[in-house]
Amino acid sequence: MSELKNDRFLRALLRQPVDCTPIWIMRQAGRYLPEYRATRAKAGSFMDLCTNPDLACEVTLQPLARFDLDAAILFSDILTIPDAMGLGLSFAQGEGPQFARPVRSAADVAKLGVPDPEIELRYVMDAVRVIRRELNGRVPLIGFSGSPWTLATYMVEGSGSKEYSHVKGMLFDRPELLHKLLDTTARSVTSYLNAQIAAGAQAVMIFDTWGGVLSPRDYIEFSLRYMAQIVDGLTRENEGRRVPVILFTKGGGAWLESMAETGCDALGVDWTTDIGAARARVGHQLALQGNMDPCVLYAAPERIRAEAATILKSYGSGSGHVFNLGHGIHQHINPDHVKVLVDSVHELSKPYHPM
Amino acid sequence: MSELKNDRFLRALLRQPVDCTPIWIMRQAGRYLPEYRATRAKAGSFMDLCTNPDLACEVTLQPLARFDLDAAILFSDILTIPDAMGLGLSFAQGEGPQFARPVRSAADVAKLGVPDPEIELRYVMDAVRVIRRELNGRVPLIGFSGSPWTLATYMVEGSGSKEYSHVKGMLFDRPELLHKLLDTTARSVTSYLNAQIAAGAQAVMIFDTWGGVLSPRDYIEFSLRYMAQIVDGLTRENEGRRVPVILFTKGGGAWLESMAETGCDALGVDWTTDIGAARARVGHQLALQGNMDPCVLYAAPERIRAEAATILKSYGSGSGHVFNLGHGIHQHINPDHVKVLVDSVHELSKPYHPM
Repeated sequence: MSELKNDRFLRALLRQPVDCTPIWIMRQAGRYLPEYRATRAKAGSFMDLCTNPDLACEVTLQPLARFDLDAAILFSDILTIPDAMGLGLSFAQGEGPQFARPVRSAADVAKLGVPDPEIELRYVMDAVRVIRRELNGRVPLIGFSGSPWTLATYMVEGSGSKEYSHVKGMLFDRPELLHKLLDTTARSVTSYLNAQIAAGAQAVMIFDTWGGVLSPRDYIEFSLRYMAQIVDGLTRENEGRRVPVILFTKGGGAWLESMAETGCDALGVDWTTDIGAARARVGHQLALQGNMDPCVLYAAPERIRAEAATILKSYGSGSGHVFNLGHGIHQHINPDHVKVLVDSVHELSKPYHPM
Repeated sequence: MSELKNDRFLRALLRQPVDCTPIWIMRQAGRYLPEYRATRAKAGSFMDLCTNPDLACEVTLQPLARFDLDAAILFSDILTIPDAMGLGLSFAQGEGPQFARPVRSAADVAKLGVPDPEIELRYVMDAVRVIRRELNGRVPLIGFSGSPWTLATYMVEGSGSKEYSHVKGMLFDRPELLHKLLDTTARSVTSYLNAQIAAGAQAVMIFDTWGGVLSPRDYIEFSLRYMAQIVDGLTRENEGRRVPVILFTKGGGAWLESMAETGCDALGVDWTTDIGAARARVGHQLALQGNMDPCVLYAAPERIRAEAATILKSYGSGSGHVFNLGHGIHQHINPDHVKVLVDSVHELSKPYHPM
């Protein structure tokens, strides 16, 4: 593997000194970029794009050609694991994801197996290998997965949900069944992320998009517990470097202390928590990633710059901060605004990292 | 006005001794009840139901005929104020609310006036008067409004939203314009709630359904500030009794201390915050309302009972707790499960209120 030319992102995750605050953006390879829309049109469906390693590599690299980003993230979807389990994933035009065979009964749960990442999810590992080769050490590559709870919401509901009636019905009425589903899923995620690391992912992130819809007790029991199980099972060193693990629960600001106890290296923080307050709570234990409201990117350049300055100031001096949005970038954002943000973060953060 | 036979709800909101914990349920008059669906079918559209005081009274009383609830809540919608401002509210079949004339420009904001509640919103005041007469003192009647920020999200977006691009675009790019809109809306809400109180509402609740999508700084500046302005302007005593004010920000668990500073009497708490922890933080200042996950009602009766017990135990001994769900009841809930919850709360809470 070629030497890493920009390791600011990995160093910040390990709270090692950096020259300025690194930045990447959740969903940085996505619909707000015209070149993404062109590749997507060429590919066919969204899953056709995900399952074609060369095209997945192409869209992964697109934002790096435009912006001075400090990390690339594998272009894929969080639902590849349940798809590989045989649930039949599709994305209807203008709709969210759909599973042909949702998991509702004990028999459905019993049928779930742990996919072999180099067989059923080979296309993801191939994408990781192609991207690493094409990145050629420019910036590190982030691998990722959905959290078991978040995957379970789609697996049991069969689609996105506002009310979570089926999966929470299972949680309250048949908790042992949900635990079995979550355990199989956690073992699948562990194996999947370890395969991504073996294929070349230099950091991994677990997206717990829907942990925030749980009560504090249920979050610990049905979401965090399985993320901790995954962290315990991950390869933490590869190519002679530590492979940092980032946990992100959207709406999980109240639970940062519990999340820090899992032994991960960094926590993603959404914009409903002040990042300075989050640092005061857990910054002695790990790094933080975030946390600008994605809607700031609708505003004028000077306002974007001012908001970046506010967040950098709130985090304060020293390493341990990876700048990001608090959630994925929206599809109608002007790409020029992203450039303003990336350049502002690098420039305005220098005083917080004295040599 | 006839004497109030059951004042447990009002007493708990003022932290006065009660014999057991009172309970009511957000959206208790709603689609999960077959009798509601029958009245709704008779009325025509949803707004036809809201604007007909006799039918609004009929559905308000329906859940009280089935369950031993400790309060009635006016059947209405949070969007009556923007509708009265002339934005043209409609509910398309199977869709959420839509405004024909969303508020986007300075000219749009300048045109907004404060509706006269006894003229443009006369149908709401008539409903309050009819319901009070028909309740005949059985339980208190709760009036309500959306918060200015929550109303603004619909007024600016023109509908419900997942991304809030227009209203947050205004927040970040033209904050002074959004402040003007929020001020007009706050004055409208104050006048609207005071008219409800004059017409007979014995407590009022402000629903800040979307305050939780803001950063801590923006929540204080664009949502809480205007709720505080409303609390300051409300009639706090009527018919020789205090009229308690309840504030509820969904997803606002991190901000309870700031909310308590407004001088309201109680805070609604959703299920993502432990109610015992919330009491430890602000229970010396005011009462708390909540906070069972609405999805618990999908579970079997014994589980519903156990969850009620857990929440009652978490709050602990003494007055100051009004039991409720952490958000509105879902439409596919079995009404028999609601009866289990209501009866369980009354029965299981007695030991926490020793005479």
